[in-house]
Amino acid sequence: MNPSQVPTPDTNLEAYLQSAQSSQLEDLSDWLRIPSVSTLSRHTADVERAAAWLARKMEAAGLQNVETVPTDGHPIVYSDWLHAGDGAPTVLIYGHYDVQPVDPEELWNSPPFEPTLRGDNLFARGASDDKGQLFAHVAAVEALLATSGSLPVNVKFLVEGEEEVGSPALYAYLPAQTKKLSADVCLISDTHILSPDQPMIIYGLRGVWAGEITVNGPSQDLHSGMFGGAVHNPNQALAALLAQLHDSSGRVAVPGFYDEVQELTESERIALAKVPYGDVELLQESGAPAVWGEEGYTVTERIGARPTLEINGMWGGFIDDGFKTVIPAEAHAKVSCRLVPDQHSSAIGPMLEQFLKQIAPPTVEVSVNTLQHAPATVVPLDVPEMQAAARAYKTVFGVEPVFSREGGSIPIATVVQESLGIPILFMGFGLPDDNLHAPNEKLHLPNFYRGIRVGIALMQELISS
Amino acid sequence: MNPSQVPTPDTNLEAYLQSAQSSQLEDLSDWLRIPSVSTLSRHTADVERAAAWLARKMEAAGLQNVETVPTDGHPIVYSDWLHAGDGAPTVLIYGHYDVQPVDPEELWNSPPFEPTLRGDNLFARGASDDKGQLFAHVAAVEALLATSGSLPVNVKFLVEGEEEVGSPALYAYLPAQTKKLSADVCLISDTHILSPDQPMIIYGLRGVWAGEITVNGPSQDLHSGMFGGAVHNPNQALAALLAQLHDSSGRVAVPGFYDEVQELTESERIALAKVPYGDVELLQESGAPAVWGEEGYTVTERIGARPTLEINGMWGGFIDDGFKTVIPAEAHAKVSCRLVPDQHSSAIGPMLEQFLKQIAPPTVEVSVNTLQHAPATVVPLDVPEMQAAARAYKTVFGVEPVFSREGGSIPIATVVQESLGIPILFMGFGLPDDNLHAPNEKLHLPNFYRGIRVGIALMQELISS
Repeated sequence: MNPSQVPTPDTNLEAYLQSAQSSQLEDLSDWLRIPSVSTLSRHTADVERAAAWLARKMEAAGLQNVETVPTDGHPIVYSDWLHAGDGAPTVLIYGHYDVQPVDPEELWNSPPFEPTLRGDNLFARGASDDKGQLFAHVAAVEALLATSGSLPVNVKFLVEGEEEVGSPALYAYLPAQTKKLSADVCLISDTHILSPDQPMIIYGLRGVWAGEITVNGPSQDLHSGMFGGAVHNPNQALAALLAQLHDSSGRVAVPGFYDEVQELTESERIALAKVPYGDVELLQESGAPAVWGEEGYTVTERIGARPTLEINGMWGGFIDDGFKTVIPAEAHAKVSCRLVPDQHSSAIGPMLEQFLKQIAPPTVEVSVNTLQHAPATVVPLDVPEMQAAARAYKTVFGVEPVFSREGGSIPIATVVQESLGIPILFMGFGLPDDNLHAPNEKLHLPNFYRGIRVGIALMQELISS
Repeated sequence: MNPSQVPTPDTNLEAYLQSAQSSQLEDLSDWLRIPSVSTLSRHTADVERAAAWLARKMEAAGLQNVETVPTDGHPIVYSDWLHAGDGAPTVLIYGHYDVQPVDPEELWNSPPFEPTLRGDNLFARGASDDKGQLFAHVAAVEALLATSGSLPVNVKFLVEGEEEVGSPALYAYLPAQTKKLSADVCLISDTHILSPDQPMIIYGLRGVWAGEITVNGPSQDLHSGMFGGAVHNPNQALAALLAQLHDSSGRVAVPGFYDEVQELTESERIALAKVPYGDVELLQESGAPAVWGEEGYTVTERIGARPTLEINGMWGGFIDDGFKTVIPAEAHAKVSCRLVPDQHSSAIGPMLEQFLKQIAPPTVEVSVNTLQHAPATVVPLDVPEMQAAARAYKTVFGVEPVFSREGGSIPIATVVQESLGIPILFMGFGLPDDNLHAPNEKLHLPNFYRGIRVGIALMQELISS
């Protein structure tokens, strides 16, 4: 750009944002090509590559003190820009560069790690959860630094590679780093908005308990023709146990499960009823034959404000092609619970195991192994940062955001909130049909570019909040 | 051997049988090294190699008209020796050269396709089911032809490579070959005896129905945090359906399942009570924590004379290492039923599907796909060939065999019995703890060598029956 034609800062920024779109897309696509699946050990080197890629990108964007912190698991990436001056607030931006596994891979319409543009959408594992959403904030910082040389607020990035496996390294890292990470507000873009034109601020996220149920029967696999009918089949026993985890009204049947649950207040039910999402939208997005769930609650309430128990995986016996007449020695289920205030996430595993041991027949043995747990998070609606967030959305989208509670969990959010003592802004720009954790994950590109603008607008709004 | 020292035929045979043991073991081990797993398409070439190996062995043993019959699936191997002269009976010896899959392979103490001798046992997939047992009859023919140049009876071998996948090729082959396969009796060694010193003749085998249950829910995998509690999880729905397939007394709860079942007669119950096998033996062999099954029946009755329904495999959702919070689009179970007279094997699939569709909630769809089915077989105890079989066992083991009904199924036996109109002798020499269809399958070698002698004795006894 010719110095004699320097435009006003805003015009300058606008021109930058328009011309940078193709390189932003190219950069993000580069990152998405790295299969950083944190839960599969065969991808460990890929996860490290994704961390190194991000560190290089942060340097290029003008962020400082870029650090790739080794941990017992996958690295944490830190960087900052702290020159906003006296009195300027500090924003801690959290995200994760690890992604979910891709199976069943045969259901992807394009390879999960070959980002593919179809219409307005970029298809790739991690496009929305969370590489795309996190990248937008790096791009927002880059845009401001490139066009004005500074940021209105101080910024710290804290990015982990273990969000999809329960954040063990970050749990260990946080308590000792509260000074380094001190900030006034934490921004997390790992949620979705209602539709491309309707932003939404999540003020509550459910907690989670996840674990494995194992049923043991005979000491080795048996021939079902020679032992069937006289030995209790662990598959059958597990099915019977799993069938007893819900009652006929869709409630979780584990005794004590609802004891600490905060019932929804009338005003909260009225607020949630305003969320333009119901049975029709649920059926459309899920393709399910019918709505299901706890009697007496709307789907928005079931998903956002009620606890659940889901069987995420189950397996036992012969599951390859063809046929094998076997009674397996054991059968397994991976189960997760979404939790709401004030459920104690640490109590769920023992509670479930006690119930299962009590209802299991003497013909099998059952045990429960906890893999991760974290309580629910709720952010007060009246903090000034929440209002700044609402204005930032309004500036970019032209409409007020709705406030909702969401079904997903970001366990680390609770820890950030508690250890740093700061409010959290869940300002996503994913969409409900982004196929998170499923085949054909995508990112709606118009919202990706809007996300960059929201990141910029938030930095600007926070100085007046 | 020096012609001037030719011993009497029996001494000659005895010397042969003693000196041939090491080469018989070596030959069988060669065959067991070929991983002829019929149900896995990656082993197709191995299955063909196993057929070719058998054909060569038959030639070497002195059998004639050796033929490897190509089919739509795996080849059938035929051979015969038909020079016993006018009036001599003909024995059709059936067996199979295919084997079960080996998973879970990590539980094998030695590689499944590297036959390993530990104590008196040879460990390998197929050692007992059925390569070892079939090989014994080839070795019996070889021994007689080598020492006396002839057999007392005519012999035909019919060996398939699809027994573990429902014998489709043999079903297609048999009806057109009834003349070629015509015989007076069929001998099948694919069952077990009670203990190394107690032979047993199986006079009844259960039939089988095998198929897959599929539960479909949402049109794609969903994030359980965003849809859990509002969409019916197919894993949960399948578990609930499977849990309803048995009632609390261990009976199959599918309406109509027992309608055609022949109840045991009092005399049959008395006979089965003499089988020295009960709760203690069952627990010892299976390693199960407790006995299970249909109330009002002993374990021998449950296994041999009552129909069953077993879940051989089930799977849905994320079953890899780690964790994935998914609601799967579908969940599956592989189910098999063992059937008794006079259950119609073709009726089971529709019966099961009708029941499942009736009890399934509108929030999922359920379907049943039949993979194979065959009715039960019972052989009259009073045919003369059955008495010849008893004498053959007595000659070799020194004790009378017991008569029992067994839980396993050899569907093709029914077809042989019906299409050729001949009785079937189930004269096994496997043992109950041979780990058929499980890790560490083994063959008890003393019984392998006795099996060869039983084969010889049977040929000799049949001419006087």
